[in-house]
Amino acid sequence: MSQADHPIKVAVLGCGTVGGEVVRLLQSSAPDLRSRVGAPLELIGVAVKDPAAPLPQESLVDLDQSLLTDDAVGLAGRADVVVELIGGVEPARSAILAAFAAGASVVTANKALLGSHGPELYAAAAKAGVDLYFEAAVGGAIPILRPIRESLAGDTITRILGIVNGTTNYVLDRMTTDGLDLPEVVRQAQELGYAEADPTADVDGYDAASKAAILASLAFHTRILASNVFREGIGGVTAADVASAAATGHVIKLLAIVERRGSEGVIARVHPALVPGDHPLAAVRGAFNAIYVEAEAAGELMFYGRGAGGRPTASAVVGDLVTVARHRLGATRGPGESTYLRLPALPVAEALTRFQIRLVVKDQPGVLAAVSRVIAQEGVSIETVRQTQGAHRGGLADLTVVTHQATEGALQKTVAAVSELDVVAEVAGMLRVEGE
Amino acid sequence: MSQADHPIKVAVLGCGTVGGEVVRLLQSSAPDLRSRVGAPLELIGVAVKDPAAPLPQESLVDLDQSLLTDDAVGLAGRADVVVELIGGVEPARSAILAAFAAGASVVTANKALLGSHGPELYAAAAKAGVDLYFEAAVGGAIPILRPIRESLAGDTITRILGIVNGTTNYVLDRMTTDGLDLPEVVRQAQELGYAEADPTADVDGYDAASKAAILASLAFHTRILASNVFREGIGGVTAADVASAAATGHVIKLLAIVERRGSEGVIARVHPALVPGDHPLAAVRGAFNAIYVEAEAAGELMFYGRGAGGRPTASAVVGDLVTVARHRLGATRGPGESTYLRLPALPVAEALTRFQIRLVVKDQPGVLAAVSRVIAQEGVSIETVRQTQGAHRGGLADLTVVTHQATEGALQKTVAAVSELDVVAEVAGMLRVEGE
Repeated sequence: MSQADHPIKVAVLGCGTVGGEVVRLLQSSAPDLRSRVGAPLELIGVAVKDPAAPLPQESLVDLDQSLLTDDAVGLAGRADVVVELIGGVEPARSAILAAFAAGASVVTANKALLGSHGPELYAAAAKAGVDLYFEAAVGGAIPILRPIRESLAGDTITRILGIVNGTTNYVLDRMTTDGLDLPEVVRQAQELGYAEADPTADVDGYDAASKAAILASLAFHTRILASNVFREGIGGVTAADVASAAATGHVIKLLAIVERRGSEGVIARVHPALVPGDHPLAAVRGAFNAIYVEAEAAGELMFYGRGAGGRPTASAVVGDLVTVARHRLGATRGPGESTYLRLPALPVAEALTRFQIRLVVKDQPGVLAAVSRVIAQEGVSIETVRQTQGAHRGGLADLTVVTHQATEGALQKTVAAVSELDVVAEVAGMLRVEGE
Repeated sequence: MSQADHPIKVAVLGCGTVGGEVVRLLQSSAPDLRSRVGAPLELIGVAVKDPAAPLPQESLVDLDQSLLTDDAVGLAGRADVVVELIGGVEPARSAILAAFAAGASVVTANKALLGSHGPELYAAAAKAGVDLYFEAAVGGAIPILRPIRESLAGDTITRILGIVNGTTNYVLDRMTTDGLDLPEVVRQAQELGYAEADPTADVDGYDAASKAAILASLAFHTRILASNVFREGIGGVTAADVASAAATGHVIKLLAIVERRGSEGVIARVHPALVPGDHPLAAVRGAFNAIYVEAEAAGELMFYGRGAGGRPTASAVVGDLVTVARHRLGATRGPGESTYLRLPALPVAEALTRFQIRLVVKDQPGVLAAVSRVIAQEGVSIETVRQTQGAHRGGLADLTVVTHQATEGALQKTVAAVSELDVVAEVAGMLRVEGE
């Protein structure tokens, strides 16, 4: 029996939406996968919480029930390649470490675990001389991590702007299209299955922050954790913000932004932002994801596709599985963690951005002069000011100020100083402007 | 001296726009490249036509003139990795074969050579046990071949629609924006350096056909040559076509379309097409490229970026160079040619598409009935008919017919039959509708 006839033993941990599709692909595409790998992939077990409970997908009725186990850690130790789709930190972390300890390679889609424990996992994979692949952790089906790690290895990435959370993109898109307020759209999204019962991880930007940490680590050859990422969710975005954005030719997107400041460091942040209508990211509708990459030689690149869902995510997982299985046949491994630049994570106060500040002011002479003076005192310069009567009664008016680029720190101080003015009744909204 | 200290010897063949930038990147990014490869990349020579002639780029003044040689084949035989950027078939082909014979891996951007001699080169690389990488051959800086070969290895690609020629996209975009006719825009593009003095390879679709062959071969694990690709250039696209497209919410794009018909075969074609204004490809402006991929599990993906130019193309070349150099350090190689599906190339007559046919007809009763009857006789069904007076004198009118989907063969017969009708004065235009 030649080496090519030896099957590669695959264990799948977790059999939810993604895990079920991975098992289905392993079965339905077995001849193709065998040709692409150079050896058959043998499913040796599927770890589930309760092996006696019914599986989520009708497509899995053919699955040999004896393959089911509730011992994820034990199963991980018997495979050549472990596909971890449990999600969250434990028992996923222990199972992955058990796999490495037993000499198995790992494919995972677990962005939360990578965002919090990436360095520990990388170190364990390197020590064991095996692969840790996780294309599905960012952008679902979109090939983005392999292009960053390998295709752009000859280039210098300077910045990435990503729409990496489909739920919030769907919510903001519906707010734009239908003029609804956020709580109503989130409620509808939950009914349609586009948002979780507890939407905190999406709406508050935790999911996007984990993905930003992964993108920054790979793009800048440095260690960035989710805890290094400035995070502001979409909870504060109102229908008035959306309408105001549209009036100036912008759309509001939740962006994950990671940027390299030369050799000084890396800034990673997640927040809603105004994006010009003619930017490629502005056209990303519904639950789609897109990652816009700026590199010194390549210029601008964009990667677009389905960022979530069982089948798209399974496509990325099985793509990694083919690569990792080929490496095992060839007794080699892919590029591991690369941290040679060791850049510090800079505070968000140093990020350069622009603010659009919407104020409710007293409708009286001298207001514009007073606001302008305070903004200038913080060293921030104004690009445009627009005063409109709006829907106000009682001698109030709307004043929208767009600044030139300045540091986030100076802009935050500016907003604080403006809100203290007697002539300012309310700071009605504040959004960063990105992608120009 | 450990293995990691041994430099990887790199030879660059050709020092035009791309070659010059590759040499510049090798020099300016040497420390980064060393960290990413795990060993230094040593430039051992640059093959040029005339070593005494001045080099094209000021950035290269530091290049040691003793590195220049006019013996591309000889230089190729002394390197670990050969970067072929001469273009065309000879002497590029001989130099690549010499590299393989000497045990060197090859990185190339030569789509014409791959489109015509791909199988010979793949076989020689496999025989020598070395790598042949060519990310820059399609889509310039856009990572598209590695995602198709590796990221989507767990999926089944069904179709690819690509804007893969920046010159023609620029020309069609300018025609759309400015209402100019093709010859005028091509002349302006030549002045700006966006089009070659002899624009045949771009305008007539030869360049796109080579790229279509490469995409089809990789996506469908089968051998497709440029000669298997149906090819129709943009030479027949008029300002009237562009205006008519805009009137129905479409834009005209030169598309490379490769599709798999199950286990029956593969159809590859290059032609101008009407693309709906809300399709992601419609927003690809100027000289940018984009490749839209449809896969069974992943769904729709799009890859967007700069398809040409020295620096973007060099980014892709050096990315491949890093991968190939890592493989040599690890005594391994990447995936080679994969042709296990061995699907036949089907004739374009079997392609399913829709036609928009613009007719000049006699403005008299019964014309619509006559045209409809002939179209129905070919088994083609009509989606919409629009009759307008247009700018005609002398009892003529414009009739625009959009068909439902049918085979290219049936549609061609339909156009021929319609043009024979007494009531039809002229077939003013015929464009396929894609991307719906």
